[in-house]
Amino acid sequence: MDAPEPADISATLLARARAVIPGGMYGHQSTKLLWPGAPQFVARGDGAYLWDIDGKRYIDLMCGYGPIIHGYRHPKVEQAAARQALAGDCQNLPSPVIVELAERLVSIVDHAAWAIFMKNGTDATTLALTVARAATGRKRILVAHGAYHGAAPWCSPSMFGVPEEERANLVYYTFNDITSVDEAVALAGADLAAIIVSPFRHDAGFDQELVDVAFARHLRSVCDKAGALLILDDVRCGFRMAFGSSWEPIGVAPDLSTWSKAIGNGYPLAALLGSAPIQDVAANVFATGSFWFAAVPMAASLATLELLEHEGGVEQMNAVGTTITKGMSEQARSLGLHVNITGHPTMPYLTFAGEVEWQWSKHFAAECAARGLFVHPRHNWFVSTAITDKLADEILVVTDLAFTATKAAGAPAG
Amino acid sequence: MDAPEPADISATLLARARAVIPGGMYGHQSTKLLWPGAPQFVARGDGAYLWDIDGKRYIDLMCGYGPIIHGYRHPKVEQAAARQALAGDCQNLPSPVIVELAERLVSIVDHAAWAIFMKNGTDATTLALTVARAATGRKRILVAHGAYHGAAPWCSPSMFGVPEEERANLVYYTFNDITSVDEAVALAGADLAAIIVSPFRHDAGFDQELVDVAFARHLRSVCDKAGALLILDDVRCGFRMAFGSSWEPIGVAPDLSTWSKAIGNGYPLAALLGSAPIQDVAANVFATGSFWFAAVPMAASLATLELLEHEGGVEQMNAVGTTITKGMSEQARSLGLHVNITGHPTMPYLTFAGEVEWQWSKHFAAECAARGLFVHPRHNWFVSTAITDKLADEILVVTDLAFTATKAAGAPAG
Repeated sequence: MDAPEPADISATLLARARAVIPGGMYGHQSTKLLWPGAPQFVARGDGAYLWDIDGKRYIDLMCGYGPIIHGYRHPKVEQAAARQALAGDCQNLPSPVIVELAERLVSIVDHAAWAIFMKNGTDATTLALTVARAATGRKRILVAHGAYHGAAPWCSPSMFGVPEEERANLVYYTFNDITSVDEAVALAGADLAAIIVSPFRHDAGFDQELVDVAFARHLRSVCDKAGALLILDDVRCGFRMAFGSSWEPIGVAPDLSTWSKAIGNGYPLAALLGSAPIQDVAANVFATGSFWFAAVPMAASLATLELLEHEGGVEQMNAVGTTITKGMSEQARSLGLHVNITGHPTMPYLTFAGEVEWQWSKHFAAECAARGLFVHPRHNWFVSTAITDKLADEILVVTDLAFTATKAAGAPAG
Repeated sequence: MDAPEPADISATLLARARAVIPGGMYGHQSTKLLWPGAPQFVARGDGAYLWDIDGKRYIDLMCGYGPIIHGYRHPKVEQAAARQALAGDCQNLPSPVIVELAERLVSIVDHAAWAIFMKNGTDATTLALTVARAATGRKRILVAHGAYHGAAPWCSPSMFGVPEEERANLVYYTFNDITSVDEAVALAGADLAAIIVSPFRHDAGFDQELVDVAFARHLRSVCDKAGALLILDDVRCGFRMAFGSSWEPIGVAPDLSTWSKAIGNGYPLAALLGSAPIQDVAANVFATGSFWFAAVPMAASLATLELLEHEGGVEQMNAVGTTITKGMSEQARSLGLHVNITGHPTMPYLTFAGEVEWQWSKHFAAECAARGLFVHPRHNWFVSTAITDKLADEILVVTDLAFTATKAAGAPAG
């Protein structure tokens, strides 16, 4: 029998997946979100590279949708995890490492006095709401229209199977729109428990929008006046925009912040951090999960944070991200393509002006994939510290060719 | 400087924990749930044993509150996890192992045609409700009074910080009480989406109650008549009561079942399994998480299931659990102590008749701990396949001494 063709390996596996997994795959890795030319399954990852199961290698700019901040299988993170694994992971009692990690996060994040750990970003955002409601004795939460805070019924992007009562206590505002906040605050009235906000507007499928400093300060001031809490959802941005809360560079401190993704370089962990005045309330809120005290991801997190701090990871990701996004802007301009590159340099997002249903973004992503670069047409990308200056140059060689090919395929000039 | 006394190590760490973790520790490992004489932090685990950070060794009957089904760090599970870790864990695309595991679960669990994976048991139960609502176009869910289905606002044992609207669409029944189900079904009316139920009544802090077969059949029949779905929450019991859904031995098949805990011998994983008619609906429900596609826990799960099947794990745990619970009953009887040992042999729970606030259960647990056996005074215990016949005998030596000491301390004779 001949060896199967590479494409057959993917096709066979996808057919098997369709039989036993709804739609063939779900969530952010759903087959519905794949684009023509996208790889389907991953074989392995190492540093800045991924290999799909057809054997093709990619420089990776998605980082597992955020968690990978030092490249896949970083030796120092793997060593720390392996050392803890020799002692134990999920056990009857907490391990000393949970105390060390809480101390470390409290020392890194200015506003934080305490930490509670869990598994999903959604666990952290949901618990933040509960703590805010417990602390204030109020129910209403302000949420930005279209913001992604997780996949629970209160925040899922889809209402399919979600009764409207799940959102009875939410009031919506528009990111960066002070008037809309004031109107929502008025609607919430004396029942305002908290405002939840992302460090920037990173809604999937839309051009991203950095925060106006005046807007961030207004949220803080509104919460102070109303006796409500400010929740910064740092699940996606945390540890890429700053070594600390993502709003520390602009001087706005939340009362609660939520963390996950990059916190353990891919090991499953999330955290809710809070300020001192709400520590006692947080002690009386019920929150638990079978794997929430598992020690291996915490050891991985300590190593991840150590690397970030001592190797200047945030500065490096910002520098490389800026090189890539500036370079791409210049490439598009010189080709006469009108593209929008938005978001933070460490989490950029590309669209083509006027495109319908990401048609040219998908084309571009496919052209990149064909040349060994993994980017996404409708989700922001992620830079890691594994992207060296040399790799940034290699990435720009690919993007230049992909822009040229996308233009040749018909993408309109600006 | 002298080496610190063992007790100082725990005390020092607990003081540090109290500074940076609300209440010193949260959730099911909360300091509030500890009892006098309980160890506070774990150093390591191996097979059937745990060592606390003061260096004391325990035979373990808690299994990390369920996840550990083959003992800590079972070599075959660790090897499978390590092999997958060399390729990768959390990446941009699913790994082949997700398809293999979905196929395996579908082959093991009679009612299941498909699987979706996540991290927490709570993720699975919450998604089960969403799928049931999406499938039926209805909102109301029947839940047993006092049942534990996770830590989300809809099911948390505490209402602190939880608005009542979060439970607007729940109707409560009493476990094993057919009349209460019929009344709840009548209340839900045409809006009944699903009934969620545990394989047996394993509410923490209460004597456990096995299911009446007639009750289980009645739930199935009620759902069929109403066009509603039956959700079996197998998060805690799964793979201890049966190699398959826990209600397979009594011949009652749910439409949806939720799994976690023992599925990966401590690796963080949960699953929602469903029947064929709702596969297409499930494909259109939004559900995701950053670590839900991670491959290492799935590889660990395949190894865990392999061991269970080929080494007769379920039969072994049942036999050893029966030896322990029967032996303990005889010990108590011969001492004239009136104790209740309830629940399934693989998940037993002990209380002393007429005690207030688990006073004698706590005393008993402390006497066991002092003699190197880890049991819990207000949560069911868990047997693993690491408990050999020889260890069961050693456990019974400890429980006999602990019963005797508890009686000597004043526990009333029956």
